[in-house]
Amino acid sequence: MQRASSKLKRTHYSKDISPELNGEEVIVCGWVERVRNLGGLMFVILRDREGSVQVTFSKKNRELYEKAKNLGKEYVVAVRGTVKAMENAPRGAEIIPEELIILNVAVSPLPLDPTGKVDANLDTRLDNRVLDLRRPKVNAIFRLRHNVIKFIRSFLLDEGFMEVQTPKIIASATEGGAELFPISYYEREAFLSQSAQLYKEQLSSVFEKVFEIGPCYRAEESRTVRHLSEVYVVDVEAAFADAEDVMALLERLIHHVLTKVTEECKEELSILERHIEIQKPPFPRYTYTEILEILEKKGIPVAWGEDIPTPAYRELGETIKGFYFITEWPTKGKPFYIKPKEDKSEICEAFDLMYEWIELASGGTRIHEKELLVKRLREQGLSPSSFEFHLKTFDWGMPPHAGWGMGLDRLMMAIVGAENIRECVFYPRDRDRLIP
Amino acid sequence: MQRASSKLKRTHYSKDISPELNGEEVIVCGWVERVRNLGGLMFVILRDREGSVQVTFSKKNRELYEKAKNLGKEYVVAVRGTVKAMENAPRGAEIIPEELIILNVAVSPLPLDPTGKVDANLDTRLDNRVLDLRRPKVNAIFRLRHNVIKFIRSFLLDEGFMEVQTPKIIASATEGGAELFPISYYEREAFLSQSAQLYKEQLSSVFEKVFEIGPCYRAEESRTVRHLSEVYVVDVEAAFADAEDVMALLERLIHHVLTKVTEECKEELSILERHIEIQKPPFPRYTYTEILEILEKKGIPVAWGEDIPTPAYRELGETIKGFYFITEWPTKGKPFYIKPKEDKSEICEAFDLMYEWIELASGGTRIHEKELLVKRLREQGLSPSSFEFHLKTFDWGMPPHAGWGMGLDRLMMAIVGAENIRECVFYPRDRDRLIP
Repeated sequence: MQRASSKLKRTHYSKDISPELNGEEVIVCGWVERVRNLGGLMFVILRDREGSVQVTFSKKNRELYEKAKNLGKEYVVAVRGTVKAMENAPRGAEIIPEELIILNVAVSPLPLDPTGKVDANLDTRLDNRVLDLRRPKVNAIFRLRHNVIKFIRSFLLDEGFMEVQTPKIIASATEGGAELFPISYYEREAFLSQSAQLYKEQLSSVFEKVFEIGPCYRAEESRTVRHLSEVYVVDVEAAFADAEDVMALLERLIHHVLTKVTEECKEELSILERHIEIQKPPFPRYTYTEILEILEKKGIPVAWGEDIPTPAYRELGETIKGFYFITEWPTKGKPFYIKPKEDKSEICEAFDLMYEWIELASGGTRIHEKELLVKRLREQGLSPSSFEFHLKTFDWGMPPHAGWGMGLDRLMMAIVGAENIRECVFYPRDRDRLIP
Repeated sequence: MQRASSKLKRTHYSKDISPELNGEEVIVCGWVERVRNLGGLMFVILRDREGSVQVTFSKKNRELYEKAKNLGKEYVVAVRGTVKAMENAPRGAEIIPEELIILNVAVSPLPLDPTGKVDANLDTRLDNRVLDLRRPKVNAIFRLRHNVIKFIRSFLLDEGFMEVQTPKIIASATEGGAELFPISYYEREAFLSQSAQLYKEQLSSVFEKVFEIGPCYRAEESRTVRHLSEVYVVDVEAAFADAEDVMALLERLIHHVLTKVTEECKEELSILERHIEIQKPPFPRYTYTEILEILEKKGIPVAWGEDIPTPAYRELGETIKGFYFITEWPTKGKPFYIKPKEDKSEICEAFDLMYEWIELASGGTRIHEKELLVKRLREQGLSPSSFEFHLKTFDWGMPPHAGWGMGLDRLMMAIVGAENIRECVFYPRDRDRLIP
């Protein structure tokens, strides 16, 4: 079927063009990646989202040849032509054009080289993100991200989890107010949600196994390579479960995702020159105290009860490879909703999932008894009255429950081997960056 | 395997208990929905997320019977016992308990009846949402919502769309600033995103077919049954496509979702006493001018070019049943990025998908030429300089493209037959409601 020439409609993606189509008429659409003019012959490499294909213009078709001479890099075109099997061509086939429509032009020079041959610094790349995303390695990261989300979701659905959406506009802080963004909400002040925590806990008292993949917001004080002001989090909560249950779930999830990525994203991994080690559960576990002992031996003493500082994590990542858990954290350093151990309340049933030096996920058994929750709020210097909307739900049959939140962007860092979280987020937001 | 009694671990959900399990030991966990004490026998209906099952305590086991006497509504329990086939019992089987653990208590009376027998007004329901969500009809709506999202996503993935995440914190308005929520963003002012529009357009110049299911924010001036301040939107954008292409996609999507809901959500539809009419594509199409003519005949004149007011839509919904499109809108009433018709620029290539009186989706062919886009911005009274970060991407090879945004919460209204959008959102946010 041939459409009116002003409306050439793609019949094939570039990757579909093969010697088997020899002699067939096709319509391809995409971007001009490269033009090589040998005088009588002009080779145009046309890129679409599936790859690229060679279109060969010759002086035999003078009118078309002259039109093609106007093509610049990243021009958007539609080409109708005939496939010609051709051993030397990139796909064993090229397209001999019969019609060329220039759908849009592009400026020259572009602020960034979309072929990826000329590198650029991160700020230039982020300022011109759309061009950056056309670079093969960057493009591969986001195709991987798309697949990773797909694998995570199908895993959780298969495990019987229900997808929920919790509000991102909230009345009070989940875990203290230091890192909140205030919003002018009609005549009041509201905040951007730091976490789905309280809502997912509430919903676990109805739907038992719930998950959400959505944005969370933190007004990070410092500039680091692993923090952003807007991050995507995979949030999971399960009723009638404890920390052990949800750690096992998390291990199975990571194993599933790594396996699927290795099986189904070979091309992306190859572009990124990335080899994935599929780590089988159980993952190594270290108690907080054991981690302190390891650090002590390395000459990095941390006082029991204190946070582990970033340089110490960096050092740990040098020794402990792959994914591992840190368990049995001091209660005072963890959020109020984490359950202290029944026989030793200065330690709590919290865990972090680490990948080398980066904390990927954090979770634990939650407190399900209101009285203890109120006590813990007070101990953390928070006012129970600010949490009244949440506390009352503990009067209505709150089951024992446990869960975790995993940074999706950080998981992507681990999978693609990125040193900066900004490599893995379409349009990162931080103190210094609000556009594009 | 029997666990230490303080850690009874569910072996079966309520729905799994059947006469075939006669004589087997099971452990169930859940909420006490009802207690009926006949003196020597006490029937406890235990509810979990899959349904409910009868646990029968008798004085033969005096200690357990006495313990069970303490049970109140919505107490959380774990029960270990033996299945007994029993014709009169709800599932043809009941559980004869051997061990009962009270995992948590609930207050009495509850602020809302979670069985759904006693109705309550919407505000009371939303104030006590977790209890409300336990009511069978409300519960069914959210299980349906979970499934609808699943069906939408799998449809779009099968159609070759890639999932993306666009920022919700933005520097300037997408479509004028009237309905924006301002955020204190470090030392600057930022806004909550009204729409993924500009970002999804940009990303279509890289990944061609993209979608996002995520929150959008509008500071709605008025209180209505179909607006909220936080809504979930299914956003789709496709390169080398026009309005016709994405309307056809939308029709196929709606048809797919309705078919899947009918096939896979029979129980939920039955609880809601809802019959779904599976409407096959193509859906009826009316131009804006034709709609005005219909309204004129009904005695509701609307001047050409004006918005169609809500009462007029209500009246339309009385006449036109099911899903239908309104096309060929006046250019001046549609956003700046919608493409005017080439032969008649006062009309544009926009469409709305309606379900009776409710607008479900809005979309169209986009402008892909920078010059025209700048012209349209000016005509809409917007400043091109505020859109510089977006306009420059039109210099880099922007393909022709088209797309739509569909209100997920509104689609749920259509599917479950709700008259108020708040029925379909876990924790709705509006002018008056910021908690829970």
